[in-house]
Amino acid sequence: MEKNIEVSLLLDFYGELLKPGVRQTLDLYYNDDLSLAEVAEQCGITRQGVYDSIKRGETQLFAFEQKLGLWKRFRELENGLDEITRIAAEIAANSHENNTVSLARGIEALAGELKE
Amino acid sequence: MEKNIEVSLLLDFYGELLKPGVRQTLDLYYNDDLSLAEVAEQCGITRQGVYDSIKRGETQLFAFEQKLGLWKRFRELENGLDEITRIAAEIAANSHENNTVSLARGIEALAGELKE
Repeated sequence: MEKNIEVSLLLDFYGELLKPGVRQTLDLYYNDDLSLAEVAEQCGITRQGVYDSIKRGETQLFAFEQKLGLWKRFRELENGLDEITRIAAEIAANSHENNTVSLARGIEALAGELKE
Repeated sequence: MEKNIEVSLLLDFYGELLKPGVRQTLDLYYNDDLSLAEVAEQCGITRQGVYDSIKRGETQLFAFEQKLGLWKRFRELENGLDEITRIAAEIAANSHENNTVSLARGIEALAGELKE
């Protein structure tokens, strides 16, 4: 079973909607990077039980995103804010008007805060 | 039972996670503004059944938001984009530098697109 980076990101986003046991196996496997056997030992269930739990959780995470598309939407917003930051920095670096520079710095700061 | 505007907004956001029957009663009641009796007639269930379905759906919608907080996060991003648009428009309106005006208009356009 290959570890999928997207699962880790979706887990951050929608993890709270999963049952705690399912979330825990995914968290140990993806975020703590344990093996199936290590997760099994830590959770006190069989390796097969861990595998089934992880597969179930992955399916649910992908289903949440397919239904809601909010993760994709957030990534678009983040990329857009990066672009806004880049343009605002360009204005601030090239303008000779104090007021313009100050306002452009304000946009940079705000876009940075929003991304957090 | 008072109709809560927030339910309608959360329904737009998380509605796809609800069972279709529950979503339908909420949709008819909140978005089409039907009465409980009208929803009951349209869905072929009792008025009490509609009431229970709506209450269950509302509870689920609020639980999704309590767990994920994505609706609040989106509203913050939207408000921030409005503020960025406002500042960019101020730059464009007051600057005497063609390049600055053009870049500021670019920020305005991008922030507007991102809000959609």
